[in-house]
Amino acid sequence: MSGAAGGLFISLEGIDGAGKSTQSRLLAAHLRGLGRDVIETREPGGAAGAEDIRKLLVEGDPDRWSPETEILLFSAARRDHLERTIAPALARGAVVICDRFADSTRVYQGAARGDLRDLVDDIHARVIGVEPDLTLILDMDPAVALARGLARQSGEDRFEDMGLPFQERLRSGFQALARDFPDRCAMVDANQAPEAIAQDIARIVEARL
Amino acid sequence: MSGAAGGLFISLEGIDGAGKSTQSRLLAAHLRGLGRDVIETREPGGAAGAEDIRKLLVEGDPDRWSPETEILLFSAARRDHLERTIAPALARGAVVICDRFADSTRVYQGAARGDLRDLVDDIHARVIGVEPDLTLILDMDPAVALARGLARQSGEDRFEDMGLPFQERLRSGFQALARDFPDRCAMVDANQAPEAIAQDIARIVEARL
Repeated sequence: MSGAAGGLFISLEGIDGAGKSTQSRLLAAHLRGLGRDVIETREPGGAAGAEDIRKLLVEGDPDRWSPETEILLFSAARRDHLERTIAPALARGAVVICDRFADSTRVYQGAARGDLRDLVDDIHARVIGVEPDLTLILDMDPAVALARGLARQSGEDRFEDMGLPFQERLRSGFQALARDFPDRCAMVDANQAPEAIAQDIARIVEARL
Repeated sequence: MSGAAGGLFISLEGIDGAGKSTQSRLLAAHLRGLGRDVIETREPGGAAGAEDIRKLLVEGDPDRWSPETEILLFSAARRDHLERTIAPALARGAVVICDRFADSTRVYQGAARGDLRDLVDDIHARVIGVEPDLTLILDMDPAVALARGLARQSGEDRFEDMGLPFQERLRSGFQALARDFPDRCAMVDANQAPEAIAQDIARIVEARL
């Protein structure tokens, strides 16, 4: 999607509390310092319609949607986000830094219900069809990440507080993705101090610019 | 879906203004008079979550969603409607009368963008997988239907007022569906008076009970 136009599509992935939003902000500032046109965005959301769909996903009862309905809603939000925000930014040559993308759906839905991974992949192939040029997987001990995630007052409880065994399944899921897609995925040790993590990320990204 | 449980799943399809909601009401009253447990429902919507998705589909700017995003949202609403309303009703042996179901997505999206019919069918096969036992296609001259549709104050303008050539493509689309699925589809002449249409429908439905 980005090659010809000169943009670069970077996603940050990892379990809750691993520091994705902090690192997204630090990376954006670093790249702007290098003179790059950068947009920071996140999923679910990142476009007007996608943010409306996000509200349906993060608000209300945790059992509001079945896993299948949730996958359709995530995919609808992603398609809107891609069309309205990501693709236009890449077309003008910008760096897009996205806090979560399709890998989160693969890992979260797969961890919750293993039989749904095929559904996620099939719908992705049909209506998204785009992967990031670079996916930074912030890998962190789930016990530490869980403590940070619970400490955060996000008000979006459906994405927090699912317990340590679930977080461990998520971590394994992200590690498996890094093995499945070695060309685009880079593992980052997120147990370090934020500044050290940011330096590792800057090195990885600069090698791709 | 309904066979073993004894329920009957009936959908009403056709272009705007063909009288689907009137006929749905008349059919429900007729079947209740025969002592049947009947629920009347409609799409998009028909369950709490699906009604929230409906708002995203029918409100706002007509260009709010791309056709692809719209198909994902219709499918999400349909999955929720199926899980929460239709399947439980059929399981207890009720007759479900549904104003629009998957055929509307096939015909409307197909009429708007012919290349999307495969996407509609693929997603349907993956996450819905259910067809009505009986689909009543209310077939009407589009010029008459258009006038009735425009006269109706539905406040949902995205589903109205798309012009006669578009309505003619829709009619052809529904006629083609009736040919493709002759076992479950019945054409009904909707150019008649409402009472005459209702009598035709009652005859068709009673033959299936």
